[in-house]
Amino acid sequence: MNTLETDLNALRASAPLVHNITNYVVMNFSANALLAVGASPVMAHAVEEVEEMVGIASALVINIGTLSAPWVLAMKRAMKKAAELGKPIVLDPVGAGATSYRNTVLAELLETASPSLIRGNASEILALAGLGGQTKGVDSTASSMNSLEAAQSLSERFGSVVSVSGAVDVIVQKNRLAYIENGHPLMTKVTGMGCSASAIAGAFCAVQPDVFQAAVTAATTMGVCGEIAFSKATAPGSFQIAFLDTLAELTSDRLTELARIR
Amino acid sequence: MNTLETDLNALRASAPLVHNITNYVVMNFSANALLAVGASPVMAHAVEEVEEMVGIASALVINIGTLSAPWVLAMKRAMKKAAELGKPIVLDPVGAGATSYRNTVLAELLETASPSLIRGNASEILALAGLGGQTKGVDSTASSMNSLEAAQSLSERFGSVVSVSGAVDVIVQKNRLAYIENGHPLMTKVTGMGCSASAIAGAFCAVQPDVFQAAVTAATTMGVCGEIAFSKATAPGSFQIAFLDTLAELTSDRLTELARIR
Amino acid sequence: MNTLETDLNALRASAPLVHNITNYVVMNFSANALLAVGASPVMAHAVEEVEEMVGIASALVINIGTLSAPWVLAMKRAMKKAAELGKPIVLDPVGAGATSYRNTVLAELLETASPSLIRGNASEILALAGLGGQTKGVDSTASSMNSLEAAQSLSERFGSVVSVSGAVDVIVQKNRLAYIENGHPLMTKVTGMGCSASAIAGAFCAVQPDVFQAAVTAATTMGVCGEIAFSKATAPGSFQIAFLDTLAELTSDRLTELARIR
Repeated sequence: MNTLETDLNALRASAPLVHNITNYVVMNFSANALLAVGASPVMAHAVEEVEEMVGIASALVINIGTLSAPWVLAMKRAMKKAAELGKPIVLDPVGAGATSYRNTVLAELLETASPSLIRGNASEILALAGLGGQTKGVDSTASSMNSLEAAQSLSERFGSVVSVSGAVDVIVQKNRLAYIENGHPLMTKVTGMGCSASAIAGAFCAVQPDVFQAAVTAATTMGVCGEIAFSKATAPGSFQIAFLDTLAELTSDRLTELARIR
Repeated sequence: MNTLETDLNALRASAPLVHNITNYVVMNFSANALLAVGASPVMAHAVEEVEEMVGIASALVINIGTLSAPWVLAMKRAMKKAAELGKPIVLDPVGAGATSYRNTVLAELLETASPSLIRGNASEILALAGLGGQTKGVDSTASSMNSLEAAQSLSERFGSVVSVSGAVDVIVQKNRLAYIENGHPLMTKVTGMGCSASAIAGAFCAVQPDVFQAAVTAATTMGVCGEIAFSKATAPGSFQIAFLDTLAELTSDRLTELARIR
Repeated sequence: MNTLETDLNALRASAPLVHNITNYVVMNFSANALLAVGASPVMAHAVEEVEEMVGIASALVINIGTLSAPWVLAMKRAMKKAAELGKPIVLDPVGAGATSYRNTVLAELLETASPSLIRGNASEILALAGLGGQTKGVDSTASSMNSLEAAQSLSERFGSVVSVSGAVDVIVQKNRLAYIENGHPLMTKVTGMGCSASAIAGAFCAVQPDVFQAAVTAATTMGVCGEIAFSKATAPGSFQIAFLDTLAELTSDRLTELARIR
């Protein structure tokens, strides 16, 4: 049995609890995606309880899509606790580079604890890589990088695996590099696909201690399900539903068969 | 005409306004479920307006799924107002027992006003029954109870009807007891099904003053629609959509015909 | 090529970034509706970043559905900034008249900046037109108006285009008046249809500087897609999905062909 199969089977056997501190837009879809793939979602953001919730969860997913000060405080507490307990942390830097506030918060989150996995699109990863001593905006160093270089730079600085989603997903950890060629452009027309990719990556990190491998399995699972879903539904509303169906119906054989990993 | 029919017809005739202070994950699905079954949803959580909103609503549904301090304050104000006005209150103790904060808040909510109906899964009802003088964690008394005993204990202490959802739903009020055998396991793979059950119970409480009966009709409606939906769609994405369709298309005849109540 | 076609083509050619400060219930559906029609949604509400986000967006949509004090502060900052930058502002006064708090907030928002477009249902527009020096409740002047008079009054006072949705949509600006006869009653059984109409109006305002025309195109697009969706799905769950599909598949030819504008 290959690692994709092992990971998917392990996820379904253990149904890991994934604690999400994520944005309002995608909470429902992320929860349904986690349930569909076989994990157990919990969303909780109160500073009074995030540490305890991290304590019972198997992975923490932080997504800054609709951030505000009280949520950022909770994210920090949760990340610190997860780091203490050695639980995997996935960071989705939604909209990195779009506003100074996002950049400042991201810099603070990265100082709080090193994520196990950073997952974003190319512009987010570039923006994140450009955050240095000064935390406002994307600096010129980042502008001259491509997203692979940015991912490698982030991976070195924070010891994180970095997953850059796009037409081809690129996953980086020190000297390890994988390209996932699965997926479909219609995925960009459904809100929360990237956020769900992060949530599902959290679920795989809960069952696969090699975070690089977990990120590869997660990205491949998303991409393969996107392809299968597009064979059932070619417009975004029904595609979104077909995607959830596919996540639930995906077998480890089919995942292996359709995987295009370089 | 039996009570199930009376209740469903009354709900659709009056389209009661149900005021939900609920969690972010399920707001959209709960609102759509209420609309589909024939009720009118409103979501409002600002302390500045919850009392007035309760005043124009026919039922209040409190769900602590993604609680935080400002929301808890609003929940208390809304519950106090609803009690004053004699309007039905449904409490959904999502994640009771998961964190001390949830337990503390639940104890405070139960002190604020007695819910007409408490609806949760077995572990939530057990956790809630275990909240006593000390409000941290589930105490040993609860651990030794089964969920029926826990529901009976809660019902006695707070004068509430208690509805325990599961493979078979159990509904308890003092010496009254009903088992609802409808439903389908796929319902647990869609986020917000339990929360929608609470919202819909609120809608039935708005038209049926016997809360026990309203809880029976609500649980039966959910279960029957789950069964019909599964006959149309067997994967969670399309099942969720079929469930909403079924809620809208359900006739009182079909509800009666498929009901399995003991 | 007529204006409907020009507008839809322009929207898709430029995929304008629409900044939404909207309610929790509809965020996901609004984002998906914007993506489906061809725009780019962003949801952001932190006071720390809304001004910067307005700066990079092409339109601002303010929706008070689940308002609370921190959100209202952000709405004001965002509206002020949009007015300074000359960017279109759409205001959706959800639940106007339902509580004093909503009325107070709406009066404050209208003092902060004049919306380019106000879009609501008849009761909301009536309530809004009744807000004067005293801001509690709907005053008697409004009670004696019909919604067309209310819309005209609002348009004069704030220089806004006013779009009143209903069985027939009415769009007003000073001496301009249009009736849109498209749409389907099932649209009222899906939560967030009105809110999405506002979001999509924001997208059209981003590409069509004549706000009256943008409002006409937006209302027609919504109505036509509602009709087409109903030809595919007649129950609310699947109708909602068919609606998103239709938004994505709508051609400017089909929009023109089915438009019923007086």
